[in-house]
Amino acid sequence: MRTKAAVALEAGKPLEIMEVNLEGPKEGEVLVEIKATGICHTDEFTRSGADPEGLFPAILGHEGAGVVVEVGPGVKDLKPGDHVIPLYTAECRECEYCLHPKTNLCQKVRATQGKGVMPDGTSRFSMLDGTPILHYMGCSTFSNYTVLPEISLAKIRQDAPFDKVCYIGCGVTTGIGAVIYTAKAEIGSRAIVFGLGGIGLNVIQGLRLAGADQIVGVDLNDDKKAMATKFGMTDFVNPSKVEGDLVGHLVELTGGGADYTFDATGNVQVMRTALESAHKGWGESIIIGVAPAGAEISTRPFQLVTGRVWRGTAFGGARGRTDVPKIVDWYMDGKIDIDPMITHTMPLEDINKGFDLMHKGESIRSVVVY
Amino acid sequence: MRTKAAVALEAGKPLEIMEVNLEGPKEGEVLVEIKATGICHTDEFTRSGADPEGLFPAILGHEGAGVVVEVGPGVKDLKPGDHVIPLYTAECRECEYCLHPKTNLCQKVRATQGKGVMPDGTSRFSMLDGTPILHYMGCSTFSNYTVLPEISLAKIRQDAPFDKVCYIGCGVTTGIGAVIYTAKAEIGSRAIVFGLGGIGLNVIQGLRLAGADQIVGVDLNDDKKAMATKFGMTDFVNPSKVEGDLVGHLVELTGGGADYTFDATGNVQVMRTALESAHKGWGESIIIGVAPAGAEISTRPFQLVTGRVWRGTAFGGARGRTDVPKIVDWYMDGKIDIDPMITHTMPLEDINKGFDLMHKGESIRSVVVY
Repeated sequence: MRTKAAVALEAGKPLEIMEVNLEGPKEGEVLVEIKATGICHTDEFTRSGADPEGLFPAILGHEGAGVVVEVGPGVKDLKPGDHVIPLYTAECRECEYCLHPKTNLCQKVRATQGKGVMPDGTSRFSMLDGTPILHYMGCSTFSNYTVLPEISLAKIRQDAPFDKVCYIGCGVTTGIGAVIYTAKAEIGSRAIVFGLGGIGLNVIQGLRLAGADQIVGVDLNDDKKAMATKFGMTDFVNPSKVEGDLVGHLVELTGGGADYTFDATGNVQVMRTALESAHKGWGESIIIGVAPAGAEISTRPFQLVTGRVWRGTAFGGARGRTDVPKIVDWYMDGKIDIDPMITHTMPLEDINKGFDLMHKGESIRSVVVY
Repeated sequence: MRTKAAVALEAGKPLEIMEVNLEGPKEGEVLVEIKATGICHTDEFTRSGADPEGLFPAILGHEGAGVVVEVGPGVKDLKPGDHVIPLYTAECRECEYCLHPKTNLCQKVRATQGKGVMPDGTSRFSMLDGTPILHYMGCSTFSNYTVLPEISLAKIRQDAPFDKVCYIGCGVTTGIGAVIYTAKAEIGSRAIVFGLGGIGLNVIQGLRLAGADQIVGVDLNDDKKAMATKFGMTDFVNPSKVEGDLVGHLVELTGGGADYTFDATGNVQVMRTALESAHKGWGESIIIGVAPAGAEISTRPFQLVTGRVWRGTAFGGARGRTDVPKIVDWYMDGKIDIDPMITHTMPLEDINKGFDLMHKGESIRSVVVY
């Protein structure tokens, strides 16, 4: 079949909207009609050429929602008409990782996914002239139709709006999950969130959902304060307005340091500040942001010997097929909010405007609606 | 009263054996006759002058065992004749730290202890001319008699031999506790221990006690292999004999990386190797060793984002009054072994020989028997 897609032909160039060929689903694969997709910083990281592992030409996009159109042989748990969210972190429920209680990093399709191909080693996408186009993060939601392994799809309820819950495919789950699944923050916790972009806001509402007593937001931009407050932030700190040591200020503000701190900036200096503003004895710091290639974190080991813990999280520690449907329920039940974070929607033809809005800092999340 | 003690008059000098004055116990304090004390690297760290927080003159020593002689007013849980192990990490059971489920770092007497004095701000020790001598780590076990806060003493069974269980006052608990209380290693775990000195050996027997399936020991000295094997090591790696990347070698040896890795070297490069040889997804690395002043650990944040956890431990995460008596029981029941690690015993007069043996690498642990 043919489908409309936004194709990244080479690094650093705007995406090009075009018709491409799409082969049907093979063994264990599913054809999905994407109804909506968010535009995430990770897509931009690859599009721009900053991602050392970026491959081209490819169809980017990994934060979508849609409907199953056709299933390949051997697909057991999905059928045409099912509503789904693509998962860039699959959940096979049978690999060593899926069977381990401490991780969500299913490895079943990891190797081929990283190479931009399906598990059989080939791509389903191609140019009209036959040139193969690579998949991206196993999702390629910047195509109206796409093919994924069954284990890379979370089945969700039918009444959830695609143009909102697509955000659960990455940003919402990454932020809320970092609190719920990785930190496992207890009721009454004190927390600090560094970076109040889309991920930071979701960390904040995750903390509110978890019953945190104090939620400190840290950002260099005062304009972030209003929205973050709406999502549950109790204290705002602009480091450029703190006299003296930021760590000391945050430790004082939280009565000795935070129980949990979260880096949602990707800046390795901020990651250090986040660790060191965690409470002596038990404070845990969770790295969410993606650092530039080659950047390193550092601290004195004394920070760890006196009880702080340094962790990271990918996809919020969520097991996609198991947890994403629950997060969709939380949204539908009003436990979490998404609508105010979707600041812009646009058709696929205008997808490059979405990237422009991200660069200008004018959007929290832009969503393409097919 | 007067007591015999080995006094550190100034940094870098040998200890001097002399008679000193010792005031009796004040409110909440206990006079203890020390029967035996280990000589630990931390004593040497301070004696040598390397410890930036070292204070002089002082009576060092923090790894002892003895008998209660007299109790001050308000002491509730101890009486003359009780056998005790001094605790450099107190357990008051009422401060914010003692009441927190994730830490053992009681803060009740921390501030005064760091200044070399009792909780009332004064020292019980003095020269015969009246010059005050400072306490050390709240213990000062290099004195035949010493005074401690009641909350800094673990009451142990009467049949345990002082010259062996004194080692539980620091090294044994630090190593075994890192496994049991900090890592909480599960039965069947795979682990790597870096550094096969006294602490490393105790980490190894902690892992054996916890039912680990694989216990890899890493040391530059092949001579350490025999003793470590005796304590439960299953595989030995000498990094100087590994061709190529040590992390890669260890990851392969452990089938993907270890569930738990432990640094017992204090070398920040080794700490990084320990983290990076932990298993992707769930491996935890625990820093036990004390790094030189100013040294920093570093790694790429990707190591944490892909699921590794970086922790530290002090006194093995043990709550002294609660856990030390249990570890004494484990020794008396034959669950753990201590005797082969006590390689030398000597009278207090020969304590400087104990430091010499440590420097030459000839001892695992030297114990002074009064």
